[in-house]
Amino acid sequence: MHELIRNLLLKKLNNPILNELGDSAFIDTFGGADTPLSVSPYSRPRPSGRGYRRADYRQNLAFTTDSFVVSPLRFPGGDIGKLAVCGTVNDLVMAGAAPEYLSLAFIIEEGLDYSLLEYIVDSIAITARKSRAAIVTGDIKVVEKNACDKIFINTSGIGRIVKNRRLSLKNIRPKDKIIVTGNLAQHGMAVLAKRKDLDLGLPIKSDCAALDNLLIPLLKKTAAIRFMRDPTRGGLATTLNEISEGCGLGIVIEEKKLPISQQVRAAGELLGLDPLYIANEGIAVVIVEPKSGDRVLAALRRNPLGRKAQIVGEVIKEFPGRVILNTSIGTQRIVDMLTSEPLPRIC
Amino acid sequence: MHELIRNLLLKKLNNPILNELGDSAFIDTFGGADTPLSVSPYSRPRPSGRGYRRADYRQNLAFTTDSFVVSPLRFPGGDIGKLAVCGTVNDLVMAGAAPEYLSLAFIIEEGLDYSLLEYIVDSIAITARKSRAAIVTGDIKVVEKNACDKIFINTSGIGRIVKNRRLSLKNIRPKDKIIVTGNLAQHGMAVLAKRKDLDLGLPIKSDCAALDNLLIPLLKKTAAIRFMRDPTRGGLATTLNEISEGCGLGIVIEEKKLPISQQVRAAGELLGLDPLYIANEGIAVVIVEPKSGDRVLAALRRNPLGRKAQIVGEVIKEFPGRVILNTSIGTQRIVDMLTSEPLPRIC
Repeated sequence: MHELIRNLLLKKLNNPILNELGDSAFIDTFGGADTPLSVSPYSRPRPSGRGYRRADYRQNLAFTTDSFVVSPLRFPGGDIGKLAVCGTVNDLVMAGAAPEYLSLAFIIEEGLDYSLLEYIVDSIAITARKSRAAIVTGDIKVVEKNACDKIFINTSGIGRIVKNRRLSLKNIRPKDKIIVTGNLAQHGMAVLAKRKDLDLGLPIKSDCAALDNLLIPLLKKTAAIRFMRDPTRGGLATTLNEISEGCGLGIVIEEKKLPISQQVRAAGELLGLDPLYIANEGIAVVIVEPKSGDRVLAALRRNPLGRKAQIVGEVIKEFPGRVILNTSIGTQRIVDMLTSEPLPRIC
Repeated sequence: MHELIRNLLLKKLNNPILNELGDSAFIDTFGGADTPLSVSPYSRPRPSGRGYRRADYRQNLAFTTDSFVVSPLRFPGGDIGKLAVCGTVNDLVMAGAAPEYLSLAFIIEEGLDYSLLEYIVDSIAITARKSRAAIVTGDIKVVEKNACDKIFINTSGIGRIVKNRRLSLKNIRPKDKIIVTGNLAQHGMAVLAKRKDLDLGLPIKSDCAALDNLLIPLLKKTAAIRFMRDPTRGGLATTLNEISEGCGLGIVIEEKKLPISQQVRAAGELLGLDPLYIANEGIAVVIVEPKSGDRVLAALRRNPLGRKAQIVGEVIKEFPGRVILNTSIGTQRIVDMLTSEPLPRIC
């Protein structure tokens, strides 16, 4: 996947906005159609080492896209429709943008049960309404039997960047606190358990949720947040590795601080899967300046979506680009990036 | 499809922007994230009969989405990648918006030939660069064998509405001229002929093209354009029916004025398909105030993309909601809307 993105897409579609490779693109909308080219990405200076600077002040919107191919379509705690809204809303939130507008595009296999489609659309409507993002444009394509597996959904989103907050890997400093806003691996494990018909007594429930109501008000209130990312594909381990690589610092996390439910722990042991590597869709990693760690943690915990939040570790000068785990038995180990995609169609 | 959109999506996702049902949504970006709710679609007055008015002056952007599932993936004159850029660019242009930013999302079947993927990405890059739209964000999902037919692409787009031009069905008046900017059915027939391995001597070439360079400069120069739409699914017949229904007026077109190539005519006869109902992706229907018809036609023809442009008919007071064809043998007939989708996966 990494290869595909770097060697194929970036090389051929090269432009400074795409090259940032964030989950959302930062774009501006101040030019007016009659200011030809002045705002086109191609007319901006190309990245050229350290001298290159983006006209950051102009960028007031975030733009993102995601396709959803989860299987099964329904699982405890969610379904493809809920996921399609949450995933795109959360990508915008991680960019520090309040979600405003969503597009919605279905690819539907001919003969799909109408009541299932109705269920999915209901779920989309409810989730979007909760998140204050509105679905303003859409598309439907129907393909013949066996040309797709039931239904795929794409949502793209536009969010408004919260004023004076530009979250960036470059803002991260040693001693910054690393907060995880909720239980790890809850979403991915719920989908996997359902797919494998795992009997764990009570089913594991996905915590899939739109995080704008948790994080946008907080972001408006405090300048203490340096960076946010949602640990989706590859789980917390992969996200922390991306962060430490991106900011050129080390990260150390405490195993006994990691919020993991008993059920997820049990399922992980049964399936031989480490919750650190399992995809999430209802939690965020929030990096906060050192002195505000406890205050931000307390604010998160006051919201039901953040009541399991934990400070799980901090940024360090040592081990640049590495993630270190202090285990509960007192040893240390390196937490590697996931190199292959072990669990397709979790989102 | 109509049922699905009206009964399921509009009912459940109801909001004033979506309810307009244009190919693009008109959105605004002036609020700033710190103007809570004032710009959310939900806080705008709900449609309530005649009293409802949108705050039109605020809307400076158009937002659109489209998924592409064409089969075969390559055809004379184009491929799914070119189509994915042109389709979304053209939806923005039809809204009177200069395309600026595109998202790009792939759903790829495991094992897809890498050289094919490379070909498609090249095609996307070339087409986007020609159209001045930049791909700024993306997503890739890989699904297992047989979970999708090779590759599907979604593109969403943001365009900046040309100042002081608000194209709308409501602007259309009797005697307005109806211009078609190029040969009919060229794209759809090219895909069909390729799919059916039709031997017509020379292959029919799709005219699939991004129309921003043809239409945006024109739109900036003249206020004579009332409305534009690209006759994609269901062809010119369906688009004209939608227009006449939408504006509550009649439309009369002259069969002998319709630009149709000899090859497309021949293929249509072979396959028993009327070019009026075949999808296009390189032409637009442009509705122009009566006195400017010839001037706009001449301007279009000066551009290679518009050199086959024709005034094919006009808007009339009679037959509201109907499209009338004056045939080349001197008779008149009603051109109905297409009721079922006869040709899936043309785009």
